[in-house]
Amino acid sequence: MDKLTHINEQGRAKMVDVSAKNSTKRVAVVRGEIKMKPETLERIAAGGIAKGDVLAVAQVAGVMAAKDTARLIPMCHPLFLTSVDIKFDLDREQSLVEIEATVGTTGQTGVEMEALTAASVAALTIYDMCKAVDKDMVIGNIRLMEKAGGKSGHYLRGEREGSNEQE
Amino acid sequence: MDKLTHINEQGRAKMVDVSAKNSTKRVAVVRGEIKMKPETLERIAAGGIAKGDVLAVAQVAGVMAAKDTARLIPMCHPLFLTSVDIKFDLDREQSLVEIEATVGTTGQTGVEMEALTAASVAALTIYDMCKAVDKDMVIGNIRLMEKAGGKSGHYLRGEREGSNEQE
Amino acid sequence: MDKLTHINEQGRAKMVDVSAKNSTKRVAVVRGEIKMKPETLERIAAGGIAKGDVLAVAQVAGVMAAKDTARLIPMCHPLFLTSVDIKFDLDREQSLVEIEATVGTTGQTGVEMEALTAASVAALTIYDMCKAVDKDMVIGNIRLMEKAGGKSGHYLRGEREGSNEQE
Amino acid sequence: MDKLTHINEQGRAKMVDVSAKNSTKRVAVVRGEIKMKPETLERIAAGGIAKGDVLAVAQVAGVMAAKDTARLIPMCHPLFLTSVDIKFDLDREQSLVEIEATVGTTGQTGVEMEALTAASVAALTIYDMCKAVDKDMVIGNIRLMEKAGGKSGHYLRGEREGSNEQE
Amino acid sequence: MDKLTHINEQGRAKMVDVSAKNSTKRVAVVRGEIKMKPETLERIAAGGIAKGDVLAVAQVAGVMAAKDTARLIPMCHPLFLTSVDIKFDLDREQSLVEIEATVGTTGQTGVEMEALTAASVAALTIYDMCKAVDKDMVIGNIRLMEKAGGKSGHYLRGEREGSNEQE
Amino acid sequence: MDKLTHINEQGRAKMVDVSAKNSTKRVAVVRGEIKMKPETLERIAAGGIAKGDVLAVAQVAGVMAAKDTARLIPMCHPLFLTSVDIKFDLDREQSLVEIEATVGTTGQTGVEMEALTAASVAALTIYDMCKAVDKDMVIGNIRLMEKAGGKSGHYLRGEREGSNEQE
Repeated sequence: MDKLTHINEQGRAKMVDVSAKNSTKRVAVVRGEIKMKPETLERIAAGGIAKGDVLAVAQVAGVMAAKDTARLIPMCHPLFLTSVDIKFDLDREQSLVEIEATVGTTGQTGVEMEALTAASVAALTIYDMCKAVDKDMVIGNIRLMEKAGGKSGHYLRGEREGSNEQE
Repeated sequence: MDKLTHINEQGRAKMVDVSAKNSTKRVAVVRGEIKMKPETLERIAAGGIAKGDVLAVAQVAGVMAAKDTARLIPMCHPLFLTSVDIKFDLDREQSLVEIEATVGTTGQTGVEMEALTAASVAALTIYDMCKAVDKDMVIGNIRLMEKAGGKSGHYLRGEREGSNEQE
Repeated sequence: MDKLTHINEQGRAKMVDVSAKNSTKRVAVVRGEIKMKPETLERIAAGGIAKGDVLAVAQVAGVMAAKDTARLIPMCHPLFLTSVDIKFDLDREQSLVEIEATVGTTGQTGVEMEALTAASVAALTIYDMCKAVDKDMVIGNIRLMEKAGGKSGHYLRGEREGSNEQE
Repeated sequence: MDKLTHINEQGRAKMVDVSAKNSTKRVAVVRGEIKMKPETLERIAAGGIAKGDVLAVAQVAGVMAAKDTARLIPMCHPLFLTSVDIKFDLDREQSLVEIEATVGTTGQTGVEMEALTAASVAALTIYDMCKAVDKDMVIGNIRLMEKAGGKSGHYLRGEREGSNEQE
Repeated sequence: MDKLTHINEQGRAKMVDVSAKNSTKRVAVVRGEIKMKPETLERIAAGGIAKGDVLAVAQVAGVMAAKDTARLIPMCHPLFLTSVDIKFDLDREQSLVEIEATVGTTGQTGVEMEALTAASVAALTIYDMCKAVDKDMVIGNIRLMEKAGGKSGHYLRGEREGSNEQE
Repeated sequence: MDKLTHINEQGRAKMVDVSAKNSTKRVAVVRGEIKMKPETLERIAAGGIAKGDVLAVAQVAGVMAAKDTARLIPMCHPLFLTSVDIKFDLDREQSLVEIEATVGTTGQTGVEMEALTAASVAALTIYDMCKAVDKDMVIGNIRLMEKAGGKSGHYLRGEREGSNEQE
């Protein structure tokens, strides 16, 4: 049985030894979403044209958070990230902003935590920028879509496009 | 119509002026969850008895993240937090860990961002600790349950207990 | 003769005691600029219409840096900032972006360091975003324009509008 | 029996609620030391005259660490520090540098953690600056000397001057 | 005579150039201790069985501090750490918790500062978690036990097992 | 036409992909200055002899800021810095302190942002240490002098020695 590798022989957490792993090019793609009232979405959309600011701020926050992951997640290895990108898609039908974070590195560990953190903080920032007009927003469906590079092989999420993984 | 208050007259983001707001005692409660395979949940549960480490690490990470919120969320005010607590509930029926973060302050702004950040980072930490055995986990349903103190009054989420807010 | 108050009796730096100072409402306004090639300025301006991103990123970076000042400047007191705003003015005649940072607090020390840091980091971010096309940019003229609140009284920079303080 | 107050009802750590505590003026004094070879001490002393740098760097590091305490110590409350000072005493007889850190605040919790952190990081910095010539240095005897302000009353360490608390 | 290499030609501190050093696998082991009243130790021990929290929190804090070393110690190089582990040993005879931190990297500089910082912050966290019941605790005997990798060769502390290095 | 490479296809900022760039030895040299009243300069100079503290603190702050650059500048890549040095020159004729920051790395991106940040924060720290006696100080002329390593070739600023680049 696979172990929860973050646990040492005293039953406490450690940062696992990756010194024997090869340094390879790695990438991770994460998606998440923040559901909101249709009016809130319209304001972001309008802003996207006239001022663009809610999503611009969320983008910067997400990129910065990706670089800060090892400081936030206790057992996560520090990494030299070679790329971070975040894209937003406004889905009026479901009344949500979909967030896609893509992070790359050349290193000894994967970057799924960095991509998950980027998407989460981008969503939190959208919440913060819009909370004066909508406190009911829900952040969710934050999930790894794809992970390439490293010994564990290529991971591709097995979901029908558009399905809601959380159900 | 209410404005997105984080936008200045140049259409860019600012940290809004709260100097005229009263300093009052405030509290925010947030809930979120991380859905996983039943086997993953069982390991966390077993760990909870024998070693307790996954949730202990997530707890520490969440508390520290609450204190770091103003550094992560660009337009969020720095705050002196007076209390942070995080609780976990293992829901075997839905195969998820429910996270509840409660944050308090005496200050001029609310602490919902701090509670949302605490719950998000606790969930991300659970993901990190368990990702060697389960990459399909989904973080979701992160939402404000209650907010007290401040001019905007008492917010209590209008949801039936157990409903999935994200749908 | 006034002392350099940051020096202790061993001749080394300390964070001076402000516990006897009154907590008052304070504000500081700082201006600075980044001089660049006219082509670089035009790209930022075009971006300001089509995408707005260089200045949007600089704005976020400046606001976040203001909150981080006490971590960057060794003897600077931590402060609860109540407002941070940054504005940009594109001066085609002098081929520069002028940056104005305004920071407010209610506290025991002034916020000129926070405003100076915000303007400096906003300028550094503009440099970073444009350095692929212009390495000759010069950051300068970063200066306190106004400071209100606190025992030392109202400071208003004595300069003719448009003069270059650095000469 | 007094409880370890940092533990919540699930047996996990929390940041305890201090919202009912009065905001009072508080101060804490901590002492610690770093023992080294006599030659190492002489170099620091010589440096103290010609260049002064080892202790100057340690001083800055200690002051900055005091401000960073709530980010380092998981259950520690963020605080507005009103003063931080660090003094060094070169004890040739015992071949050590004694470090004294004094921290003040006006707030709802004590500042002993901030003073302990300041002294520890100052000692670590001395180690770092001198480790090329002495790897045998030992950091020790880091202890609270005095604590004033707050409900728990005045704490004054009961030790004979010069005794080694660690024995 | 060996120089204090952190000093530049102006007599001030610099971060020394390590670009010519080989990137090798390195490890450092540090031990330290926190002495306390027997009752305090018993509570931690009891907690170690029923709840485990004091040491679990100290462990997380120590691991996170190891990753933060270059931000705390001014002239310390940033490093990609490949492993961090912390172990605790409760010594009832001497009434202390012994802390052992082991840090690994593949890089151009050693990791003794990271291990020293991990042990120090773990000790500070134990102090913080127990200070409501014991203010007399003393942190000490923080010392490098072993250092492997790099040009300076294998360092192994020359001490009789159980001796108190600080005397 | 060269693009502003920090912009993604949605017109928002990203951290550009450098994974295909070679890891080479790189260095950047930046100069900047802080202009002040002659009396202020004399105090710093006097301090330079008797206590040395203003510039010693600025030096430490600048070195630490260089390591923190990727956390301050949103789209800047994290880097392992191999060296950081800062030098000061007191220019009585122009009544200013000239700051020169030199940063080295072996990596995939240049270090001009790290050197620019180091010089800027050193200047801000001098301002902070002296602001009790001089609020009219102006930070300026922060510019890249030289950049070596990497595909874009050797950059050497084309300026007559002593000219003021900002005019």
